[in-house]
Amino acid sequence: MTEQSQTKAQVINRYIPSILSAKESAQAFAPSNIALCKYWGKRETELNLPTNSSLSISLGHLGSNTHISHAHSGIDMVRLNNKVQDPQGSFSRKVIAFVNYFRREQNIPLIIDTRNNIPTAAGLASSASGFAALVLALDDFFNLQLTPQQLSAFARMGSGSASRSIYTGFVRWDMGEQADGMDSVASQLPCQWPELCIGLIKVSSAKKPVDSRSGMDRTTATSQLYSNWPAQAGADLITIQRAIESRGFNAMGACAEHNAMSMHATMISAWPPLVYWLPESLAVMQRVWQLRESGIAVYFTMDAGPNLKLLFERSSQKLLEAEFAQMDVIQPFADE
Amino acid sequence: MTEQSQTKAQVINRYIPSILSAKESAQAFAPSNIALCKYWGKRETELNLPTNSSLSISLGHLGSNTHISHAHSGIDMVRLNNKVQDPQGSFSRKVIAFVNYFRREQNIPLIIDTRNNIPTAAGLASSASGFAALVLALDDFFNLQLTPQQLSAFARMGSGSASRSIYTGFVRWDMGEQADGMDSVASQLPCQWPELCIGLIKVSSAKKPVDSRSGMDRTTATSQLYSNWPAQAGADLITIQRAIESRGFNAMGACAEHNAMSMHATMISAWPPLVYWLPESLAVMQRVWQLRESGIAVYFTMDAGPNLKLLFERSSQKLLEAEFAQMDVIQPFADE
Repeated sequence: MTEQSQTKAQVINRYIPSILSAKESAQAFAPSNIALCKYWGKRETELNLPTNSSLSISLGHLGSNTHISHAHSGIDMVRLNNKVQDPQGSFSRKVIAFVNYFRREQNIPLIIDTRNNIPTAAGLASSASGFAALVLALDDFFNLQLTPQQLSAFARMGSGSASRSIYTGFVRWDMGEQADGMDSVASQLPCQWPELCIGLIKVSSAKKPVDSRSGMDRTTATSQLYSNWPAQAGADLITIQRAIESRGFNAMGACAEHNAMSMHATMISAWPPLVYWLPESLAVMQRVWQLRESGIAVYFTMDAGPNLKLLFERSSQKLLEAEFAQMDVIQPFADE
Repeated sequence: MTEQSQTKAQVINRYIPSILSAKESAQAFAPSNIALCKYWGKRETELNLPTNSSLSISLGHLGSNTHISHAHSGIDMVRLNNKVQDPQGSFSRKVIAFVNYFRREQNIPLIIDTRNNIPTAAGLASSASGFAALVLALDDFFNLQLTPQQLSAFARMGSGSASRSIYTGFVRWDMGEQADGMDSVASQLPCQWPELCIGLIKVSSAKKPVDSRSGMDRTTATSQLYSNWPAQAGADLITIQRAIESRGFNAMGACAEHNAMSMHATMISAWPPLVYWLPESLAVMQRVWQLRESGIAVYFTMDAGPNLKLLFERSSQKLLEAEFAQMDVIQPFADE
């Protein structure tokens, strides 16, 4: 960390042949993921190097499919969910800028076609699965034969949590310590939990007033309580990983909820206050706490937005579906 | 702080003559107060010694009137708002236990009659004004001639924030460092701010699910973010005091709101989470932020409950009364 910071291009260049050879086309899928121990805060912003390790669960078949092929028109084209994107729009620019770290000066015009099968009603972010699928598709298209660690590191440079979307199941992203971030990569935990369910409760689909990246920056710059967050997250990660390994549902759920609430607490103590919750979010939280008091093993986690993700086991699914009519249930291990 | 902790009785005894002489009757008033820099957390629980200094504004003529007289029946009687209280109820027991620190073994049966003129619709705590008025009335009734510092220290032993209700106007409670707490006392700031208004917005009158004392204990025991709170509060106090001295309304309001939100953040990061907000609280906060974005100088503070206290100057009063139909406006300096 005392070393000088490096650019994405510098780091990626080291792992890419100087002359690329491209296939006809390639395609890849990466799952969306929900963090049980959150990523919140960067020690280095260029490479998205985090101040804490994090742990997530990938959402099975829900995520992003990315297809890459040659643009015979000679001009890059970016499509999202079957719609051609404005080349000057933020989505196209982010995708093309990322592709350019691999393509560099070579004239290889591409069609990048991304389709998210995350239910739009679910209120899930798609940047994690999107950058992970893009890296996987680039690796195949240019036959780069990157290792899983390299794929995870490069996805992280697109969006921090994308480092975890390289894998299915439970995934731990170790914060690492190297200046080039090549040790800040995710790996899969050798654990399955077929009974585990995630209930997505969408409170609002309005665009967030403050995006996650800006929210993170505001929090680290202005919240005096934030400085204890990395240590808490480090301890929470160990607790959650052990709970997963021993299938301790209550230990896992309680720690995940505490971790999410503590992350939101760092935002709430930022200035101006960052409150991603809506009144309806609070109503759902209170209902979860009531249900828990009545003996039902249900917890929640929340990201930088108003929507809730309930954690429960299959034995409680029917009861909770009756409580939360608008809930979408995902079984991350169901299709494996 | 390395010294052994002392009991309330031990500390108070040192300042009370061994044989009391009582008047016929005595009465005293103490104002309620709202903290701009909050008291949240104790370094010592017996004497209510805080982990941080705090700063409040007293609410003029809104508070508690306490009248003490002899109970010729020979049995103590406690009245609250004209209603005789059950001697075994929590209110009577707290009052009598406190009176006994002064009365000790002497057989002086009393009638303690307290009337709060705080609008019940306002959602304000009455323990601060109640204990302050009780200490002032005891001082007069037994002709103790306690100094303001002693009065403040003894009121603090009843309820921490009561230390500040000994005074009108702006009041700073210095945390102190002595084991007997006799330097953990409040004093009045020599500042007036006639334009300053406080708008009470009551969201709910339901009993709090977790009282402040328990909430404070849970926070300090389980919130990992809490340990930075005392330092933040210390810095906020200086900022707020300077803003008051220079009549910098925005500086004062912003720091008071940030301070309150940070206190709530420590609660939200406790386990189980302590969320005193109701959905309606969040709706009022969001309306305040919208109004502020539209150029209106209005901030809020909140205590361990769902109600909001808006801070604004008289020039904005009409506009804000139109926005918040249910708001009670207090002008703390209006009657001075």
